[in-house]
Amino acid sequence: MTVSRTPKILRTVAQVRQWRQALLQNNNQTVGFIPTMGALHSGHLSLIQSSLNENDKTIISIFVNPSQFAPHEDLDNYPRTLDSDIKLINDTFKIKSVDAVFVPKISEMYPSGITLDINKQRGAFINVLGCSEQLEGITRPNFFRGVATVVTKLINIVQPTNIYFGQKDAQQCIVIKNLVKDLLIPTNVKILPTLREENGLAMSSRNQYLSKDMKQRSSLIYKGLSQGEKYYELNKNQGKVKSSDILKEIKSIIESDKDFDIEYISINHPETLDELEFVEPGIGALVSTAVKVPKENSNEMARLIDNIILH
Amino acid sequence: MTVSRTPKILRTVAQVRQWRQALLQNNNQTVGFIPTMGALHSGHLSLIQSSLNENDKTIISIFVNPSQFAPHEDLDNYPRTLDSDIKLINDTFKIKSVDAVFVPKISEMYPSGITLDINKQRGAFINVLGCSEQLEGITRPNFFRGVATVVTKLINIVQPTNIYFGQKDAQQCIVIKNLVKDLLIPTNVKILPTLREENGLAMSSRNQYLSKDMKQRSSLIYKGLSQGEKYYELNKNQGKVKSSDILKEIKSIIESDKDFDIEYISINHPETLDELEFVEPGIGALVSTAVKVPKENSNEMARLIDNIILH
Repeated sequence: MTVSRTPKILRTVAQVRQWRQALLQNNNQTVGFIPTMGALHSGHLSLIQSSLNENDKTIISIFVNPSQFAPHEDLDNYPRTLDSDIKLINDTFKIKSVDAVFVPKISEMYPSGITLDINKQRGAFINVLGCSEQLEGITRPNFFRGVATVVTKLINIVQPTNIYFGQKDAQQCIVIKNLVKDLLIPTNVKILPTLREENGLAMSSRNQYLSKDMKQRSSLIYKGLSQGEKYYELNKNQGKVKSSDILKEIKSIIESDKDFDIEYISINHPETLDELEFVEPGIGALVSTAVKVPKENSNEMARLIDNIILH
Repeated sequence: MTVSRTPKILRTVAQVRQWRQALLQNNNQTVGFIPTMGALHSGHLSLIQSSLNENDKTIISIFVNPSQFAPHEDLDNYPRTLDSDIKLINDTFKIKSVDAVFVPKISEMYPSGITLDINKQRGAFINVLGCSEQLEGITRPNFFRGVATVVTKLINIVQPTNIYFGQKDAQQCIVIKNLVKDLLIPTNVKILPTLREENGLAMSSRNQYLSKDMKQRSSLIYKGLSQGEKYYELNKNQGKVKSSDILKEIKSIIESDKDFDIEYISINHPETLDELEFVEPGIGALVSTAVKVPKENSNEMARLIDNIILH
């Protein structure tokens, strides 16, 4: 008997349903699910590791979801690296590994078709109102609509016991938690801490766009956030700390690289995402930022996001 | 041993999940589900009968869904008649009956709260674009958003094998079929024919608002639609029939009651709901109408809808 550890590749909704049904009938096994857009990195691997620890079976999806991209964004150029993604999984997990990888075509996920022009779209789309409009939602007004829609579809296909997301996408985590709560979706949402390079740079598929030098320089983003946290920790014994003072600390560091283009640095309520004038201990805050940094061998910029939670 | 045939009343999401889980573990029993807003009539009973025939267990929900009402509509006055609904079920189904009735509070269904003012709403809402904007959607622009949202929630709670709707709400059927297809929801949508009074009036909870006399007069609506069908059948051997000619036939009959207020009579493609200039045999059409008729002991009007399919 040979035991193949490479995950089963499932390409259709019907194949996933069949796989899932067999697990239901076989002692109602638990399933952990990590939805991804591929270009897997250590951040994903840590989500997978948690799922392997906590579930009988683990499935990941690799799907670059068109409806979360705007017409001018990088849908066509988003890295698609299935073979190296599978190799990374096989190289990383030797004892217990991912059981299945769902790699659907766009038509499987969008049976009514999908165009990036939101005014011409047909079919079912989900908005999570109240937490989708600010921060990332300002420059990407339909991003979380795309995320909420595709995650709902994926959950309906996979029917996972647990679904895993990284804290790096802080607003996405809040949107998904509200989505699952509001639509009464029968799954548990697990949020895991942001994984970072040794220099502090948050792991991201978009880091692939950066030169080695730019990866080093981009660690300024986390240094800035950490400086803001340090300032808050030093001053929070006064009862509350002015957000603008924290922001000043962060800005002075990130701004020090003149090639960086800060899109926003913002301090928001950790659950409602309302903007905060003061941060109060006990309530805390989400401090988040989006910064554009130069891509390697290109005139374009890569958009990096990061965040930190104040308590 | 006494066998109680009255259905189990479930009031919380947790209770339904527990009920459902037990059926899953007990031989993976099939579940038929009929979502209703109560005020049950023979139309509902025929949906229930189909579910009883086709599933191991049958559950209905009774929930007057706020998000499908506009602020000026009849949410507060919509009939709420739980006791007589249960009695009707018990009187109708003697051998095999409904197993459970889900009667949730609003806060169970809208964990983020719900206001009828769409600009102040928070939480997850679902739009089914392309088939929600015309016909009923013209005067009720957020109606199908409310329907799609609550049906998705109910399906996520009940996880039915089959879900039942009546053809009377023709556009709703099309919205739900697209919703389930697009979001990959694992349930089968079953559409059953419109049940009618002997005089032809489509059964509806809103018929409760009508005097006996007005119920008789309102049968004109179906007589008009049937006259349109007759005209089409007589002329379709010519290859196609002008929609405006069919509409003229229908209108002349419904307009003959001067107390009626016709909101629309429309001829649309049976799947896309695009308006049709001609009806062609083989493609066919949905012919639908909304008519306001005087309520009993009131200056208000009741809004009745009906439809017929041309083949």
